[in-house]
Amino acid sequence: MIRIGIVGYGNVGKGAAKAVAASSDMELKAIFTRRDPESLEILSSCDVLLPFSAAEKMINDIDVMLLCGGSATDLPEQGPFFASMFNIVDSYDTHAKIPEYISAIDAAIDASSRKNIAIIASGWDPGLFSMIRLLSESVLPDGVCHTFWGYGVSQGHSDAIRNIEGVMYAVQYTIPIDDAVEAVRSGTRPALEPGQKHLRECFVVCEASADKDEIESKIKNMPNYFIDYETIVHFIGADEYFSRHSEMPHGGMVLRSGNTGNSSHVMEFSLKLDSNPEFTGSILAAYARAAFRMSGEGLSGAKTVFDVPLSYISEKDRLTLIKELL
Amino acid sequence: MIRIGIVGYGNVGKGAAKAVAASSDMELKAIFTRRDPESLEILSSCDVLLPFSAAEKMINDIDVMLLCGGSATDLPEQGPFFASMFNIVDSYDTHAKIPEYISAIDAAIDASSRKNIAIIASGWDPGLFSMIRLLSESVLPDGVCHTFWGYGVSQGHSDAIRNIEGVMYAVQYTIPIDDAVEAVRSGTRPALEPGQKHLRECFVVCEASADKDEIESKIKNMPNYFIDYETIVHFIGADEYFSRHSEMPHGGMVLRSGNTGNSSHVMEFSLKLDSNPEFTGSILAAYARAAFRMSGEGLSGAKTVFDVPLSYISEKDRLTLIKELL
Repeated sequence: MIRIGIVGYGNVGKGAAKAVAASSDMELKAIFTRRDPESLEILSSCDVLLPFSAAEKMINDIDVMLLCGGSATDLPEQGPFFASMFNIVDSYDTHAKIPEYISAIDAAIDASSRKNIAIIASGWDPGLFSMIRLLSESVLPDGVCHTFWGYGVSQGHSDAIRNIEGVMYAVQYTIPIDDAVEAVRSGTRPALEPGQKHLRECFVVCEASADKDEIESKIKNMPNYFIDYETIVHFIGADEYFSRHSEMPHGGMVLRSGNTGNSSHVMEFSLKLDSNPEFTGSILAAYARAAFRMSGEGLSGAKTVFDVPLSYISEKDRLTLIKELL
Repeated sequence: MIRIGIVGYGNVGKGAAKAVAASSDMELKAIFTRRDPESLEILSSCDVLLPFSAAEKMINDIDVMLLCGGSATDLPEQGPFFASMFNIVDSYDTHAKIPEYISAIDAAIDASSRKNIAIIASGWDPGLFSMIRLLSESVLPDGVCHTFWGYGVSQGHSDAIRNIEGVMYAVQYTIPIDDAVEAVRSGTRPALEPGQKHLRECFVVCEASADKDEIESKIKNMPNYFIDYETIVHFIGADEYFSRHSEMPHGGMVLRSGNTGNSSHVMEFSLKLDSNPEFTGSILAAYARAAFRMSGEGLSGAKTVFDVPLSYISEKDRLTLIKELL
């Protein structure tokens, strides 16, 4: 049994706990939280909540720690901290800062007395989508790759709307534009600006006294987040918001069109997820297997999904994989 | 530069030669053929055709040999033979006999004085589709996976029709049934018989004296190949056959639907290929990189796509992969 710890009892942490419970080769030892464990509603009677400070004492009781915090502030601190004690897996997703994050993790492991392994950025993007980008580019080098996100909730864009004065609740759905997807599929290699690939649909609950026109204008003209996109804003009541917009669906697709000789080819990978955090938690659990095995082989340091042979994420042994899945 | 040899100058061999020519880190040293090299039309002025007997003398001039023969009779003989001299990559595709084939390759390598590596079954099915089956099953263990093939030419079914007396030329297209694909996508986990997943459309040119009704009946009632499927037979003239049915398109999709907690998810990977052999040749070239690198690390023996870290198939270095594709 692979002994698993989870850091963070938010949505991804809860998803990871479910995934570990569903894996016959894993055992959940504890979930570590910064909040007062007593104050949290425990999802499953199997979940043992402990404060962060309890982790160090469990250094010999946990094989792999799944870090389920956010990339903005949690992981830059928690990644190096836990990697100095445990093998870790996380879904760090600030694309531009991954090299820096890898350096920090490597430095923490080097400075420790342990030879831990850290498989970072192993969600679905970065993660599964990255694998498809690499695979499709390598087998079809003369081509173009496009990633589309959605239909799904963008947490960053939802937060940006919530920060506008007068807004109580808000959710933003990112939606791929069908014509853009079809253009890529057609193999014509279109040059697509971000605003031609996605549109943004917002559902906003505002205070009774708020000026809706002003809020709508602030959303649509917000730099970086909305100004370059077709943005649709709906004002709704709190009841509708909580009954219809509290799920966290997401998904997307990676498309590559390319050529060999005079022939053209299209490769496509897509995800349609009812629950983004539960699916992400499931990927983390699968890569915990890889971390456990690679660590057992004496490997250490920061790794990504690009470094992991696929067989390492499966419960099945080599011959079974060959017979059943090859 | 990775020095490549190709065994076989059929459709896949020609596709592999194009893929090697398109790779900036590879150099094609020679193509080995059983036929008289003088008798073959050379596709590219860069292609050097040599007889099989010339391979042994080039043992130090070739890093990886791409085996492009068929799985029925060529590879069972050529795989072990060439693996005893060279690192090899092939697209062996007789699913049921892969364990046996791996044993034969391993035995040949063990008996040789060289520590060669053999990445076998690296086409798109087995190959890319196998990787998606493993990946999707590992991250979504509570679910079902279905593979659909087509729209595309099945060589085996086409050959079976050609063997009927009175048939001059024939091609068979395998076509996924939309309702079955949609049923899998819906997450209802349908139990589908083979005949519910695919239909078979045949274009047949027969001799003037042939009895078309009899031929159609023989096709539709052929055990294993057609009897369990909805089969459509068109009789056409030779002109139409050569003008409209001489390409080798193929493709297909791997779909997995599954659940985490109360949420359902769908993962889908699809290929639409104008030229099956050129795409297969491109995958072989990408995995030649992996064979070269793994051999350089001292690894040896028969491997599959499950054993290869994805970064090994890319031309790009680690930091570039992380920055551009992760």
